[in-house]
Amino acid sequence: MVHSVSAMKLTDLQTPALVVDRAAFEHNVATMAAALPGPRLRPHVKAHKTTAIARRQAEAGHLGFTCATILEVERLAAAGLGADLMLANEVVDARRLGAVVEGGSRVTVAVDSEATVTAAADGGVPEVIVDVNVGLPRCGCAPEEAGAVADMARARGLDVRGVMGYEGHVVGLDDRAKREQMTAECMEKLVQAHGDVGGELISAGGTGTYDINTWATEIQAGSYVLMDTAYGRLDLPFRPALTVLATVISVSQGWAVADCGLKALGMDHGNPTMADGDVWFCSDEHVTFAPANTVRVGDRVHVTPAHVDPTIAYHERMHVVDGDDVVDEWAVDMRGW
Amino acid sequence: MVHSVSAMKLTDLQTPALVVDRAAFEHNVATMAAALPGPRLRPHVKAHKTTAIARRQAEAGHLGFTCATILEVERLAAAGLGADLMLANEVVDARRLGAVVEGGSRVTVAVDSEATVTAAADGGVPEVIVDVNVGLPRCGCAPEEAGAVADMARARGLDVRGVMGYEGHVVGLDDRAKREQMTAECMEKLVQAHGDVGGELISAGGTGTYDINTWATEIQAGSYVLMDTAYGRLDLPFRPALTVLATVISVSQGWAVADCGLKALGMDHGNPTMADGDVWFCSDEHVTFAPANTVRVGDRVHVTPAHVDPTIAYHERMHVVDGDDVVDEWAVDMRGW
Repeated sequence: MVHSVSAMKLTDLQTPALVVDRAAFEHNVATMAAALPGPRLRPHVKAHKTTAIARRQAEAGHLGFTCATILEVERLAAAGLGADLMLANEVVDARRLGAVVEGGSRVTVAVDSEATVTAAADGGVPEVIVDVNVGLPRCGCAPEEAGAVADMARARGLDVRGVMGYEGHVVGLDDRAKREQMTAECMEKLVQAHGDVGGELISAGGTGTYDINTWATEIQAGSYVLMDTAYGRLDLPFRPALTVLATVISVSQGWAVADCGLKALGMDHGNPTMADGDVWFCSDEHVTFAPANTVRVGDRVHVTPAHVDPTIAYHERMHVVDGDDVVDEWAVDMRGW
Repeated sequence: MVHSVSAMKLTDLQTPALVVDRAAFEHNVATMAAALPGPRLRPHVKAHKTTAIARRQAEAGHLGFTCATILEVERLAAAGLGADLMLANEVVDARRLGAVVEGGSRVTVAVDSEATVTAAADGGVPEVIVDVNVGLPRCGCAPEEAGAVADMARARGLDVRGVMGYEGHVVGLDDRAKREQMTAECMEKLVQAHGDVGGELISAGGTGTYDINTWATEIQAGSYVLMDTAYGRLDLPFRPALTVLATVISVSQGWAVADCGLKALGMDHGNPTMADGDVWFCSDEHVTFAPANTVRVGDRVHVTPAHVDPTIAYHERMHVVDGDDVVDEWAVDMRGW
């Protein structure tokens, strides 16, 4: 899916267009690989949904991946990156995952109930991990039930690789001391559950706790590779690497409009930001902003999404740039379900 | 793109899945066609991005369409629906539109500046409409400048079909009297501009003002066909026709989780709603909710998006249902740019 784009310039791109700053991206990959080498990181691909990026993460030493959807598992396997794929999510029909196992990839699926254990067994997925609720009200069994879920899985002939538990309510907290304290509380529950479950894995963590969560045997961080404005507020060594390139299409007295609207942006964290001005609001295909300096129709501007993950899911491809040169194009090939 | 799906049931669908209630959809198409027959409605396709729906709107008598992106124009033309396509948005490079004209379709593009007039002329788009700002701070020239923009266009040999001006800040107001008053104020500006511009078209309006805006010669409504919770609050005769079908994947004490997250939903209008419970929050691939009644892992639930347009843009297809039967599948084939 990676191919080089010769002699293409930023100004040649049709907009809106996802743009990845190569230097920032490579810095992020290298910084994380130094901090959490090899299997200490199981990169989460939901943030980028791009096998070309997963391949780069594998080259940096991380051969196992975390997925949020069945399709992400399928596409990584098809791209030859199926050494150790974990679907960190519950499914009630695991047959498509079983087909990936049949195809020669290693797949582990999260379970937190009898129904999901049954789905794994019936679907032909031989390995599971017990998902434990460590404080975020989402999936995962209660810590004290983890041993029983593991017993159910083993009774169905499944291998139980350990426990996972995502401190998703902690990773985004601005105050590092608070992140440290709450991570410790969450991981106390997970370690306790691991005592009842066994297995080699304690899988947890995210970009905001990658260097705080020392209880986990592996960290599931994904956002670090491109970052966004929410994580950008934290004291992290990763650089913002992704923007949406837009074109100014209309200029009025006091505001201007560029062609990057809410169908090109994840909006659950609110409006995007712009170095070139203050964002007023987004429509389907427009961002209205008060420009910091004079802009003209046809000018290119960069829009920084508040939340990278749902932004990327709207786009078919991303363009890798080095200054004004477009040096590569990556297909966002893990979209959908 | 329309093909029938024989003997498929709602429970057979992989989730998350867009689901269209056929009866509600047909009611909406028929109700609007009765209120604004034929060319009185120029349906906006940005809401649904689906040529199969556009074809149904054409069958109901509306042969002209409104588009928000170049790609929507291209795909409608390719689907044989290119009798009268209006891109109600400014572009600085109209060459792809010119290629659609070359292919035999009729294309009109919005202009509001010298740069966009030049783009139309250079790109080979022979017909334009002058976009006038009627109060929403977005695209469009000031009403008093509309005549000059039309003169510029005619000087470049372009046909000027009239004026358009979208009262986007009015269409969603709950209070009908307020909608009426503000629509009148907006349209006073547009009619004045039309006096300076000439041409047969005064194009304006949306679902919230479809029966209020009597100044416009044609209404650009799009949301009416599927509706959403924002428009659902208004006193309109259209029925909600679209939900996202999801599967319950985890049940805990006090909450449950279904597999419809914020990558399957437009979130700019906030959280979705559920008939089956109260939504707490959405993650990338999860909705956590307090169920109204007992739910079990594997149960199907319907999630109603707060904003339909950006919801649909995440999905490759929608499924048309009649009760528990899936009677059709439509490709969302106008996504991207």
